[in-house]
Parts: sequence; structure tokens; C-alpha cells
Amino acid sequence: MKAEYVDRMGNDLSVVNAARVSFNKTSSYVYLDEDGNEVELKVQDGISKDFLDPPKVIRGKDVGLIKFLAKHHHWTPFAHTAITLRMQAPIPIRTQAFKHKVGLIENEESRRYISTAPDYFTPTFRQQASDKKQGSGEAFDPSTQTKLQSFYDGVMSDAVSNYDYLLELGVAEEQARFVLPQGCEVNWVWTGNLVSFANFVNKRSKSDAQGEIQDLAKQVNDVIAPLFPHSWAALTS
Amino acid sequence: MKAEYVDRMGNDLSVVNAARVSFNKTSSYVYLDEDGNEVELKVQDGISKDFLDPPKVIRGKDVGLIKFLAKHHHWTPFAHTAITLRMQAPIPIRTQAFKHKVGLIENEESRRYISTAPDYFTPTFRQQASDKKQGSGEAFDPSTQTKLQSFYDGVMSDAVSNYDYLLELGVAEEQARFVLPQGCEVNWVWTGNLVSFANFVNKRSKSDAQGEIQDLAKQVNDVIAPLFPHSWAALTS
Amino acid sequence: MKAEYVDRMGNDLSVVNAARVSFNKTSSYVYLDEDGNEVELKVQDGISKDFLDPPKVIRGKDVGLIKFLAKHHHWTPFAHTAITLRMQAPIPIRTQAFKHKVGLIENEESRRYISTAPDYFTPTFRQQASDKKQGSGEAFDPSTQTKLQSFYDGVMSDAVSNYDYLLELGVAEEQARFVLPQGCEVNWVWTGNLVSFANFVNKRSKSDAQGEIQDLAKQVNDVIAPLFPHSWAALTS
Amino acid sequence: MKAEYVDRMGNDLSVVNAARVSFNKTSSYVYLDEDGNEVELKVQDGISKDFLDPPKVIRGKDVGLIKFLAKHHHWTPFAHTAITLRMQAPIPIRTQAFKHKVGLIENEESRRYISTAPDYFTPTFRQQASDKKQGSGEAFDPSTQTKLQSFYDGVMSDAVSNYDYLLELGVAEEQARFVLPQGCEVNWVWTGNLVSFANFVNKRSKSDAQGEIQDLAKQVNDVIAPLFPHSWAALTS
Repeated sequence: MKAEYVDRMGNDLSVVNAARVSFNKTSSYVYLDEDGNEVELKVQDGISKDFLDPPKVIRGKDVGLIKFLAKHHHWTPFAHTAITLRMQAPIPIRTQAFKHKVGLIENEESRRYISTAPDYFTPTFRQQASDKKQGSGEAFDPSTQTKLQSFYDGVMSDAVSNYDYLLELGVAEEQARFVLPQGCEVNWVWTGNLVSFANFVNKRSKSDAQGEIQDLAKQVNDVIAPLFPHSWAALTS
Repeated sequence: MKAEYVDRMGNDLSVVNAARVSFNKTSSYVYLDEDGNEVELKVQDGISKDFLDPPKVIRGKDVGLIKFLAKHHHWTPFAHTAITLRMQAPIPIRTQAFKHKVGLIENEESRRYISTAPDYFTPTFRQQASDKKQGSGEAFDPSTQTKLQSFYDGVMSDAVSNYDYLLELGVAEEQARFVLPQGCEVNWVWTGNLVSFANFVNKRSKSDAQGEIQDLAKQVNDVIAPLFPHSWAALTS
Repeated sequence: MKAEYVDRMGNDLSVVNAARVSFNKTSSYVYLDEDGNEVELKVQDGISKDFLDPPKVIRGKDVGLIKFLAKHHHWTPFAHTAITLRMQAPIPIRTQAFKHKVGLIENEESRRYISTAPDYFTPTFRQQASDKKQGSGEAFDPSTQTKLQSFYDGVMSDAVSNYDYLLELGVAEEQARFVLPQGCEVNWVWTGNLVSFANFVNKRSKSDAQGEIQDLAKQVNDVIAPLFPHSWAALTS
Repeated sequence: MKAEYVDRMGNDLSVVNAARVSFNKTSSYVYLDEDGNEVELKVQDGISKDFLDPPKVIRGKDVGLIKFLAKHHHWTPFAHTAITLRMQAPIPIRTQAFKHKVGLIENEESRRYISTAPDYFTPTFRQQASDKKQGSGEAFDPSTQTKLQSFYDGVMSDAVSNYDYLLELGVAEEQARFVLPQGCEVNWVWTGNLVSFANFVNKRSKSDAQGEIQDLAKQVNDVIAPLFPHSWAALTS
């Protein structure tokens, strides 16, 4: 299970300047350099290069605007941004991730076309919950944990063997996968904006979310937070 | 694997009247009764009841408008409709279905909260394709088919036993499911409009789609076609 | 400015049953009739007719589920519904309405194809706000109001005359409209689900929304509330 | 009326690599440098900087994959990209642009908060069309053109005077704008991906689109084409 950085567009100032278009016909792209001097960017020059490294210093009133926008649910200025991640998770966790549809694009590996042995995810097993809506309770003690994981590993490697056996018999890849367990890892490329990823992280970091997706949400958080420090803090606090 | 009718909004005249708003400030809701007389519906009366049974007779110029709209990709009038289906398919087929995101809402069963033994899907096995992009080739001969399905049934029932065993040991449902095979059936409620379901059916009825989803697309087609005969024909031809 | 009922799909039980699919493989469609007896609907019979008139009595546990879903932002079950409205508003208010994009379909009249004189909206004029973010302050006193509206009517009818003059000179309709004022009314057909319309009503009913769209949101509220009484109350409270 | 470049994410290789995830667990980011040598990018290093200047040389098989994806309507790989534009157009053209909803985010100036005199757009006037669906016919001859534009300028500057007069009388900005003509220019920031902008350009470049939006689509085309030369050509040809 993992979330890795691939690419992005924009920084905190992209949000500020998208918001300012509401108030004024021409919005200047201004930031403070490291000595605290105001530097104005000309739109006509293209701004990507200057924006690549997030400005170390940002004007207080710009931070204030970001907080105001988030507090009043004016989310569209935050959506003039883009982040691409490379993800890996077992199937049910991937399915939970894909429930977040708005503003997100996903391309995943397809086992219609792949016949290599899949990786599988080994969980730290938790006990059943007393309250069903909670999903699960405490982790098992180390000794039981070891036994459970050993049993699990046997099941998973048997399943991969069965998969390989069906492929050897000439069964189509797209059908042989029906015997693969849901604990197998899936890889996907995931592109969205600050708002869509913040929705994912906020919802899937809650205590009633499955432990595995809480871990994945934390990884997504750790990739995005340093790229858009003020905007991300405002959207996820 | 199945697609069952649950509910719907609108009929072919809903499409016609949504389109007519472009041309005129007030659009009359007119249809032909079985004797061929024009009957005008008043918007202020509410029109659902009269619309519930699709009009047996529709004016030729209305059918012409439907064809014109579809031909020129003016799809929004077709989206002032709704259909709810109850669906069942194995996981990889469900995943393919959910790739169609725009205009579709899905609620599916969650094995975080269910611990009953799942149903599983048994395919008619096909051979590997000579061309990878095609997905699969011909079905196996009956004798090999029987052997493959017998092996598959053994694998699937072993997997369900392993799942039950983990539950007995007190493992949380949300983690025990990692050993369930991807051939297990998932149930979901699916709501969309004519455009979104037509996109699904058109794309997943093609010869390069996986055989199983071609079957599912046919079932969706068979539910929707009689409800919106002219619109559906125009969108899926 | 107006919001009129055209059609809908579902009622409060549609929400309940879409949610129940998470917990159980087969969900029964149960409601209480007026004598308090439980009546079970069979999915295979189609359920639209029985659902057309909202059940007068609904089980307490179903109302409880609706409240639970809304409180915990589990919004997808509410989206297995559909409502079609026929709307009219002046251009800037229509533009604000269309900012609500997710889950909504709109077809509006087009002045590329219409050359009849447009209706226009006459506001009750309000004074400038002391706080810019508030948009406007108190309404003018009756005497000033009359003078302002009289001036406004003169401006609007002159504008319509100029529009007609350009059409008489043979100018294309799609260009003549450039002289029409933004106070002209636009008609559109609007289809969405409970979630999308609740988002619209919640956001546009706030005190910092423009007065005119607050009025329009109230009209939308008054159409939808009786159709889905428990769900609408849970989403908009 | 204008479309100006602000920012973007990705280039033709972003599309290629998003597509490759379907076939393989780990996709290498490879491009040819100007001497024709293959250069491999490591995902873990972050790739933005290397990707900023589109590679001058791209492998033939990558171009082939881009063409294959577009031809078979596999559009999601193209959506792992982002482009931000700064736009200006008169209201009815802006409204046509905003009909393209999927994958696009817009923030526009609001005349609830602005009270400066707006710019207005002056068209080259065209005659009424013989075929209504065409929208308009030929441009007027130069002498009639001059007279029409002179009349139009008078109407527009009178309208702006009326707007200013209402503001002087203390009418709220959000209501005074009802007298402003639809020919007034609106500014907005527009962010989308290659697919959403290609849909806009393809649909609004057709001969039955209004002349003004054909011009705007051409400007959008001219900004994006050099940034993603192979992908854009494949999507818009």
C-alpha cells in the first residue's frame, strides 16, 4: 500500500489568484521573496517556472484569504490546482478510494492484460468490533497475530498458485483472475485537485474508517501537505 | 449476475419537452392517445401520473426530434430522465461498470458489515486470446469446461471456508474479506439517466469488452429499451 | 422568477432502501399503510406505482436511518432520486444557480433561435451594503422605490425596443441579444437529485446570498419538501 | 474576448504513462533527448522539472499509443493533465462555454462586488440565417456594418451610464447590474484537462456554432496545441 508523488500544478498562490478574479478584472500575481520583497509575476510571461518552488514567504493577507475561503466553503478557488499520485492498495481499499468520484481521474492496472503473479497485502489483523458501525476493534496479541498471518500467507500463496494453474491450462487472464483474493494489490494513477483529495483525506481519516484506508489517507496527506501548506491546512483542519 | 428494474422517471416525451425549451418560452406537453387524438398535459397539474405508462402513440415529428438530437450529440435533453436498477456482478465486472462515473450513483453492499457467506459467479471459461487487446478467445469444449468449472468450484468453496474460519477466530469482517476471491458477487443499487446508461451499454457491448460485461450490458439494455423506446434506440444504434 | 414541479422519481423509502443494500444482500421494500400494517413490495413487480403517492406513515426506524445518514454525510443513498423543475430567473440569478454543477442537468431557452420580446424581471431595489461581502442592505422607502422602478422600466423597455430594431435591420438573433439587459428572464428545465437540490437550497438560502436567489431557493424548497418530507428535512436542517 | 495561458501540468508523456499502468505494474518514464538517447526518469525523484519543457523528441511507439487511445475513445489517460486559462467573453458566449461542465472548474468575476464600468464586446454583425439552426448568415457590407456598430456603441454606452446612475442613487451593485447589456465582457479563470478542453474546442469549432465562440475556441486551441502537440492533435482531429 502506498501513495507516491508524480506531478502537480500550482501552489498556494494559485488559490489566492483564482479567488481574486471575483473582485477585480485584473489580478496581479504577487508573492514575497525570501528577503520579504514583493515580486510581481506577469501572467503573459507564463508563471509555471516561478511557481514550481512554492514561495517560502507568503503575505499575511493571502493566508487570511485562504482561511476565509475554506471557512465559508468557497471551494472552487482550491480546485484550480492538480496533483498526480501513483497508488497501490488491496482491492476493497481501492474500491473505497474510488467512491470519491468528483474531480478525480483514475487509471488502474488491468488483469485482463497482465498475467504476472500479483503482490498481496498482509494486514495487521484486528478483532471484530463490538459496535458494527466501527468496523473493527483492537489488534490481536503478537502470538495470535503471527498465527493468523501465517494462515493468511498460506491461503494467499495457494490462491496465486491456483491462478497460475488456470493460466497454464490456457484460461483467459480476464477470467483466471476470478480466483485471485481481494487482498491482492492494485496499482493506479490518480489525478485530482486540492478539494477532491482533501475530501478523501478528511473522510477516510475518521476513526470509523477502515484502518487500512486511514493509513493510505495519511500517506496522501504527507505527499500533498508540503506542496500547498496553507491551502491544505485550511481544507483539512 | 443480473440487472433488475426498480424505478424510473420520464419517458420519450420528457426528452422531447426538455429539448423544446431551447426554442420556446412555454412548451406544451402533448401526446397522442390510442385513438390518435392530441392530448395536452398541463405542467401545473403535475404530469407524473399521465406519464407513468408510456404513450403507445407518439407524434412523428417528436420521434424525428429525438433522432435529430442523438445524431448531433445534443445529449442533455436525454439526461432529464432517471432509472434505478438493482445489480449483481463479480468484483472485476463491477469495477468495470463503476468506471462509468458521470451521471451515475452507486450504493453497494459492504463486507465491512456483512458476514454471511457470499455467492460467487461461475464463468463459462474461454481460452486465452491470440490478440491481447481482445481479452479472450473461444470457449473451451464441454469436457474441458466441466473439469475447469469443477476445479474452480473447489477453489471458491475452499476460499469461503477460509473466510468463515477467520470470522470464527474473531478476525474483523473488514479484514477477513481479503481472502475472498474476486469471483464473489457484489450487489448494488445503480441510478443514472438515459445518457449515462447508454454510454455504459454502448461501450460494454463492443466485441473487445469482456464477455461477462457484454452479458450484463445486454440485461441493462433489456430493462431500459421498453421504457424509452425511441430515445434508447436513438442513443444506442 | 419561478420554480415549478414537472416530475420526480422516488420518495423517502427510496433513500432507505438504497442505504440498506450496504448491510444486506436482499433488501425488502416495506412501508406502513394508513392502518399501520406493514406492506411489503416485491422488487420484481416494479415499485413505481405504489411509490407514486408518498406513504402517509413511515416506520420510526426508517426515519431514524434517514437522520443518521444525513448527520454522518452518507449522501449517496439520497441521490437515488430525481426531480425535474421548470425554472425562470433573470440572467445573473440563473448564472448563480448554474454554479451548482454536480448532479444537475439544465436545458435552457436559447436566444440564438428565439426572436420574441423577452420578459424582464423587476426587482424591489435595495441599498448598497455597508459590508461588501453582504451584497446589499435595506430596501428603499416606497416613494424612492417607485421612482427607481419607473426609471428601470423605462430602461428595460428601451432595451427591448433596441433589440427589436436590430432584428428589423436583419441582424442575426444570436448577436442582437448582446443589447438585451441582464434583467431579462431565462427559462430552463432543471433535473437533479435530492442531494444536489439540497446543496443549492442550503447555500442560496443563507443571509449573504443575493435576495433574489434566496427567493428562488425558497420556491425550490416549497416544491420538493412535500415530496420527500423526511429526507428533505434531514438534508436541509 | 481572449484566452490566455496561466499554468499547466504534464505533457504528452503524462498521457503515455497513465495509459501504461493498465499493462504493467511499474511504468518507466522514458523520453528521447535531443540527441535521440533514451532518458529514464525515476518516479521517486519527482518528475515535474524534467517535464516542464516538453521533450522535443518522442518515441514513435509513444505517439502510436496516443493515437490508438484517442481512436478507441480511451480518454482517461488524457485526463491526467491540467491547464489553467484566463478567459474573457461576453455573457452569452461565457454561458455557452460553461455548458461544458465535466472536468472543468471556473471562477468568474462577480458584479455583486465590482462597481467599475464594465468593458463591452463589439461584434462584427452578421445577417439572419436562412436556416434557423445555423444561427447566422454572412457579415453585413462595410457601410452597413459601420452604421450598426455606431448604433450599438451608443446603446452600450447609454446602458453603462444608466448603470452608473443607479449606483450613484445608492442601488446595490448586485441589482444595478440588471440594466447592463449581455454584450458586457466577463472575466474568468478556467481549469480543466486535455479531454474537457478538447470537447469544448471540438464542439464549438463546428460551423453551426456561433461565430464568436468559434473565435474563442480557436484561441483556446492555439494556447494548448503547443503544450501537448501529439495528444491535442489526436483528440481534436
